[in-house]
Amino acid sequence: MNRALEIAADVRARRRSAVDATREALAVIERENAAINAFHHVFHDEALAHAGRIDALLANGIDPGPLAGVPFAAKSLFDIEGHARIAGSRARLDAPAARRDADAVARLRQAGAVLVGTTHMDELACGATGENPHFGAVRNPHDIECMTGGSSGGSAAAVAAGCVPLALGSDTNGSIRAPAALCGAWGMKPTFGRLSKRGTLPYADSLDCIGGFARNVDDLAAMYAVLDGNASNERCDERKVAVLGGFFETYASREAWDAVMQTASLLGPHETIVMPEDEMQLVRGAATIISNVEVATAHANLLDAPAESVSPRLRTRLLAGALSPAAWYARALRYQQRFRMRMSRLFADFDILLAPCTPFAAPRFSDTTIMVGVHALEPAKHLGMLTQPISFAGLPVVTAPVIRPGRMPLGVQVIAAPFDEAACLATARRIEEGFRNTQRTSTDT
Amino acid sequence: MNRALEIAADVRARRRSAVDATREALAVIERENAAINAFHHVFHDEALAHAGRIDALLANGIDPGPLAGVPFAAKSLFDIEGHARIAGSRARLDAPAARRDADAVARLRQAGAVLVGTTHMDELACGATGENPHFGAVRNPHDIECMTGGSSGGSAAAVAAGCVPLALGSDTNGSIRAPAALCGAWGMKPTFGRLSKRGTLPYADSLDCIGGFARNVDDLAAMYAVLDGNASNERCDERKVAVLGGFFETYASREAWDAVMQTASLLGPHETIVMPEDEMQLVRGAATIISNVEVATAHANLLDAPAESVSPRLRTRLLAGALSPAAWYARALRYQQRFRMRMSRLFADFDILLAPCTPFAAPRFSDTTIMVGVHALEPAKHLGMLTQPISFAGLPVVTAPVIRPGRMPLGVQVIAAPFDEAACLATARRIEEGFRNTQRTSTDT
Repeated sequence: MNRALEIAADVRARRRSAVDATREALAVIERENAAINAFHHVFHDEALAHAGRIDALLANGIDPGPLAGVPFAAKSLFDIEGHARIAGSRARLDAPAARRDADAVARLRQAGAVLVGTTHMDELACGATGENPHFGAVRNPHDIECMTGGSSGGSAAAVAAGCVPLALGSDTNGSIRAPAALCGAWGMKPTFGRLSKRGTLPYADSLDCIGGFARNVDDLAAMYAVLDGNASNERCDERKVAVLGGFFETYASREAWDAVMQTASLLGPHETIVMPEDEMQLVRGAATIISNVEVATAHANLLDAPAESVSPRLRTRLLAGALSPAAWYARALRYQQRFRMRMSRLFADFDILLAPCTPFAAPRFSDTTIMVGVHALEPAKHLGMLTQPISFAGLPVVTAPVIRPGRMPLGVQVIAAPFDEAACLATARRIEEGFRNTQRTSTDT
Repeated sequence: MNRALEIAADVRARRRSAVDATREALAVIERENAAINAFHHVFHDEALAHAGRIDALLANGIDPGPLAGVPFAAKSLFDIEGHARIAGSRARLDAPAARRDADAVARLRQAGAVLVGTTHMDELACGATGENPHFGAVRNPHDIECMTGGSSGGSAAAVAAGCVPLALGSDTNGSIRAPAALCGAWGMKPTFGRLSKRGTLPYADSLDCIGGFARNVDDLAAMYAVLDGNASNERCDERKVAVLGGFFETYASREAWDAVMQTASLLGPHETIVMPEDEMQLVRGAATIISNVEVATAHANLLDAPAESVSPRLRTRLLAGALSPAAWYARALRYQQRFRMRMSRLFADFDILLAPCTPFAAPRFSDTTIMVGVHALEPAKHLGMLTQPISFAGLPVVTAPVIRPGRMPLGVQVIAAPFDEAACLATARRIEEGFRNTQRTSTDT
C-alpha cells in the first residue's frame, strides 16, 4: 500500500485512477483480513462507485480534494449513510441505517477519500484489548497470536497491515493510542472538544475524542488537517521537552521505558517530571467513574436487552455506572477540571511531554497477567493505564510507533498543550526523521 | 441614603468624607435593621477605619477608585478577611476566619467601597423565601409581615431599606432576582461563569453566579463594571424585544404578568415566544437534580453534623442529593448543555427577552399557598419557578423592579444573550427612564 499523499498526488495528476487505488485496497483487505479480522464490513461496490465518481470529477477538470482517491476505513461507531452503526454490539445489529455520514467521515469524503470499510472494535468501545465477544478478536498484523489493543483495534490493524493508508478511530481512555502502539502505526487523538463527534456513538461524552491512524506523519497530518479544517501551521522552532516519570516509569516495562528514552534522545536534552502514583491512581479512579456513568447513561436501554446480546462484562459495567451515586460523578467531574488546569500549567515550562503509551508491547491472547517490575498487570485492566491520565486532562497526543525488528512494536505518547496539535505533529515528524536516520546509520555500520 | 455614584463623586471631590458616608450607613442600619433583620454582622469599627484610610488617600492626592467611600454589604457566603463565612448555617458558626477576601469583595474594596456588614441568607443558600431556621427571617422593608424572597434576602432588604446603596449576592436558581423583585431593588445576575466565585461558599457549582443589588441602574452598572473589570461598553441601538409566554404566563399572577406587559410597553413593540410547560418542567427537574447533587457533594460532611445545627429541610435535601443516581445527574448536565444552546438560539432573532421574575409579589409569612390561576403555589417551592429556567440556561439577567404605590413591588427579568450584560443594563436604563416618565406624566395629570 502506498502512502495516502502519494496516492492522492498520483490520482490528482491522473497517473493512476481512484478506482485502481480502491481496487488495490480491496485486494489487500481480501488477502489480509481473514487472518487479522480487522474489518466488520467491506464496501466493495459502493467504494468502487465512489472512486469512479472521483475519477469522473478529475476527467472534468474538477479537483476532488487533497485526499483524492485515498482509501480509508472507519471504526464501526461512525455513522455511514445507508448503513447501521454496529459499534461492536450484537444488540445493535438491527439498528436503523444512518441517514447521513458522521462529520468526520463526511469531511474525509469531501476531501476525495474513498471509504472502503468499517472496522471491528471492542463492544461499544468499552475495552482495551481489541477482543469482542460477538465478532471475535482483532489480531495483530505483526503476530496474529497477539492483541491489537482497543477499542480502535480494527482501524489500527487495518492501517498496520497495509489495507488502507488512513483509518478513523475514537479515543476515550486510550482507544487510539494503545492500538497504534501495539500495531506500530501512527495515531492521533486531538484535544478534547476539538473535532466534531456528530454522528458517532458515544461512550463517555466528557472524554470521547475522534482521531485516526496512518503509516507516516505526513499522512497523519494531512488527515488531521482535513478533519480539523482549521489546523494551524506547524511552527518548526525548537521545543522544550520533558518526559513524564514517576507513575509512568513505575508501570512501564523496561522495554517500554527504553522506547521513551530512545525517542527523547532524538529530540535533544529533556527534563523529567515526576508524576506521583497517588495522584495518577486518583485520576484513574475518576476517569473510570466518568466512563462508567456516562456509558451507562448513554446506553441504559441495554440493561433490558436479551442476555445474549450484551456481554456479561459490559452488563456489569453498565450496572456499575447506573448504580453509582451522583456525588461520585460530581466529584470526578470537578477533579477532572482541576487536573486539566494542573496539567495545562506544565506547558508554561515545556512544549512537549513524552510518556510511554502502554506498559508493555502487545500481549498474547493467552496472557492473563504480565509482570512489570513487582506488579502483575492484566491486559484488559492495565493496557490503558498510561494513556488514561492524558486523555483525562484533555490533551492532544500523537502516538509515535517504535518499530523493533524481530520484536513487537511499542509506542510513545507525544503530548502537547491543549489545542496545540501542530506541536504534536511537528515533533512527531522530527521523531520519524530521527528514527529513519538511526536505522540508516545502523545499516551503514 | 444617597446613590452610590453621588457618594463617590462627593468623596472624590472631598465635599464629604468617606467616614461621614460610612457613619450615615451605620446609622441607617442601626435604625432599620431591628425590624428587617437584614444584617448578620455589622463591621462598625473596621468600616470606619477603612473609610478613614480612603479619606487619607484622598488627602494625599491618591484616587481610591470609582466607588470611593461607598458603603456596601455582602451576603454572608462571601469570604471576608478575618471573619468566618457563616452562610446562614449554624454548623458554620465555628468556621475558621477567612485569610483573604472573596474576589468580588476584594474588587469592590480596591475600587474604594467600604464594607459595612454581612447579610442574612437562607441556610447554605438553599431556599427561596429569606427565612432561616437559625437566624430568623429577613423581613421585607415594604411590609415586615412579608417575605423578602431568598436566598440573598438580606442583601436585597439592606439595599431596599436604604441601609447601603450596593450589596453583593449570589444566584443559583433565582437567589438574586427573586428578592430584588420582592423588595423592589435592581438586581443583577451575570452570565454563568463570567465573574470569579473564588472565596464564596458553593451551593451548586454548575449554576452558581455572583452578582448584586442597587437602587438604580447607574449604581448597578458601576458595581458590575468593578466586579467584571472587563465590562464592554453599552451599545445604545434599538433592541428587538420578545416576551417569554406559555409557562411564564401560566404561572404568573395577573399582576405579575401586567408588570411584564407594562415594562414591555416602555420598550416599543415586542413578539411573544411561547415556552412550553412540559419543557419548562423538565428544566425545573434537571435544575433541581443538579442543585441537590452539587450541594450534597459540596457539603456532605453536614450529614454527620449534630441534629440541631442542620435544619431538617436542608438535611432532607442533602440526603436527596447524596442518594441520587449518577445517571440522573449525568442526564441533567447533558440536558443543561442542550437547553443552553436552545435558549442561545433565540438571540438570533431577539436581543432582549422579558419574563416575570416571581409568580406573585412578596407573600406574607403566614401564606401557605397562593392561587395563581388554577394552581395552588407554595412560596418555598414556587417562588423561584420563573427564574430557575433562565439561570439553568446560564443567561445574564437584570431584575427591573416595578414599584406600585400602596402595593408590594414586583420584578421583571431583563434577559440577554450569554455575555451580553451590556444589553441587560442598557435596556434596564431605558426601563428606568420609561417608568420615571410615566410617573411624571401621571403626577402631571
